[in-house]
Amino acid sequence: MTDYLTALDEDALTAAGVPGWPYGYGDKVRFYELDKLDHVNNVTFLKWFETIRVTYVQDYGLTEYSGTDADPQLVVRALSADFLLPMFQNESYIVTAKTTLLKTSSLIMHYAIHAGGTLRATGDCVVVSLEADGKTRRPHKSEAVARILERDRPERVGL
Amino acid sequence: MTDYLTALDEDALTAAGVPGWPYGYGDKVRFYELDKLDHVNNVTFLKWFETIRVTYVQDYGLTEYSGTDADPQLVVRALSADFLLPMFQNESYIVTAKTTLLKTSSLIMHYAIHAGGTLRATGDCVVVSLEADGKTRRPHKSEAVARILERDRPERVGL
Amino acid sequence: MTDYLTALDEDALTAAGVPGWPYGYGDKVRFYELDKLDHVNNVTFLKWFETIRVTYVQDYGLTEYSGTDADPQLVVRALSADFLLPMFQNESYIVTAKTTLLKTSSLIMHYAIHAGGTLRATGDCVVVSLEADGKTRRPHKSEAVARILERDRPERVGL
Amino acid sequence: MTDYLTALDEDALTAAGVPGWPYGYGDKVRFYELDKLDHVNNVTFLKWFETIRVTYVQDYGLTEYSGTDADPQLVVRALSADFLLPMFQNESYIVTAKTTLLKTSSLIMHYAIHAGGTLRATGDCVVVSLEADGKTRRPHKSEAVARILERDRPERVGL
Repeated sequence: MTDYLTALDEDALTAAGVPGWPYGYGDKVRFYELDKLDHVNNVTFLKWFETIRVTYVQDYGLTEYSGTDADPQLVVRALSADFLLPMFQNESYIVTAKTTLLKTSSLIMHYAIHAGGTLRATGDCVVVSLEADGKTRRPHKSEAVARILERDRPERVGL
Repeated sequence: MTDYLTALDEDALTAAGVPGWPYGYGDKVRFYELDKLDHVNNVTFLKWFETIRVTYVQDYGLTEYSGTDADPQLVVRALSADFLLPMFQNESYIVTAKTTLLKTSSLIMHYAIHAGGTLRATGDCVVVSLEADGKTRRPHKSEAVARILERDRPERVGL
Repeated sequence: MTDYLTALDEDALTAAGVPGWPYGYGDKVRFYELDKLDHVNNVTFLKWFETIRVTYVQDYGLTEYSGTDADPQLVVRALSADFLLPMFQNESYIVTAKTTLLKTSSLIMHYAIHAGGTLRATGDCVVVSLEADGKTRRPHKSEAVARILERDRPERVGL
Repeated sequence: MTDYLTALDEDALTAAGVPGWPYGYGDKVRFYELDKLDHVNNVTFLKWFETIRVTYVQDYGLTEYSGTDADPQLVVRALSADFLLPMFQNESYIVTAKTTLLKTSSLIMHYAIHAGGTLRATGDCVVVSLEADGKTRRPHKSEAVARILERDRPERVGL
């Protein structure tokens, strides 16, 4: 059975021609991701970055989205994307993600879209970890920190 | 490499616990498909039906979306969906599709969403095949008709 | 200041050339509502029906989406749409809605999209009112029932 | 009749409490723009920036999206957004846009979302003007340049 959101680790990504990334998944462009200009809409790339961010924070243990006090609120403070080459209907691609900077209660993630041997888009995201009040900073869970440091080898500040 | 939109045939679907369907694919609920009620939004199911319809019409040879005279315009005249059970974040599911009624220049497709051993939603769609003028009926390609008759065993009218 | 979701009542709709409807709003096709076929995507119409349904149920008093026991859970059981004529970039349109059948704890709504003097699409939706358990039927609030009967003049069953 | 995408000019925006912007429109949060965290999804803000960008480039005369040689291809090279405060169901807001840097065949736009007297999000976008080949730079139309210089008063490079 295909299961598109199975996380790919560094070895699987290297085998797929995308070395240097700790986390990714493969997918294929759908009709509803195209716009009237007949290529993948710019905002769709941001949705792909969101999709991998949401699985990443669960897989690395930053949150289980329980909505209880067991989990922080992870808030996106900023997003950016660079569009390098267009993408078209039915193209297969790999989305990759890694934390590039880790602080006590925030982090910066970097994303890339790879297809047909070329880099199509990259992006960055600033994520802040908050208490349920939506204001007070809450440190990341220690298991998640350990996993990120080991797998992603980010710059660290205050850790 | 995962490749979510790989079409699944009748044998693969039967093996996956979904017998009686000629065509399907497996996927997983994404964050952006949930709405504020914390389950998959109703309209998302219609997007899944669209996604499988678009790959189906290509895989069965009804159109290649060339935008040239080599292909008909396939126009959706009507859509419907029944929502049987809610779906939640990260659930894996299988979408299946088949043509249930085939006419010379139109067809009716039936869809279903299967997850965790239960049927979550079903749907139907009326598709009409037109010339580039968007008005004149254009008969389906004969290879596509043969493939649909063989694989989907629909009711037939005028064929 | 423009304020697109201001509900239009029967008089305002009649003045706008759409008589016979108790509730509607005016809007304009956005770029992201078009698909690669260069017209409004079919699923977009269902989103418009959802948008007016959500404001309708609040304006008529069926729910305030409080998420508390003060409000029922309104669940969509079925949706359908008929696509009559295509719509294009920048077109202005009016969405209208009315309840056509009212039962103690459910209702059927009918929708239409009007643009440039023609009817572009229609739709229907079955909505069920439930308790917080998501299973037990919960009667509509009596003020909402009174408002629907007076404004929409639906068929009634068990009321 | 409400008509949400009516462009608001500097006077109308100032009257609405948003001075210092040459171009904007008013709108209201829709149900489908919320995510399971019960606020407006981050990517939705990027859709609002896209919506105003598409009307801006038409209103200022940069393109009519004719798909012919009469119009350039306007390609988004980069996008960014900062999320300052969350937004909720039914909130009314104003989106504003202006060109902050104008070059012969490219420009940078700045966006902001205003609601209830506070700034909720800002964004930036790099747009490049190309010939139909999708590669060769094509200078902006001179009427559009004149309109942008007069209304938006951007920094200019090479103009």
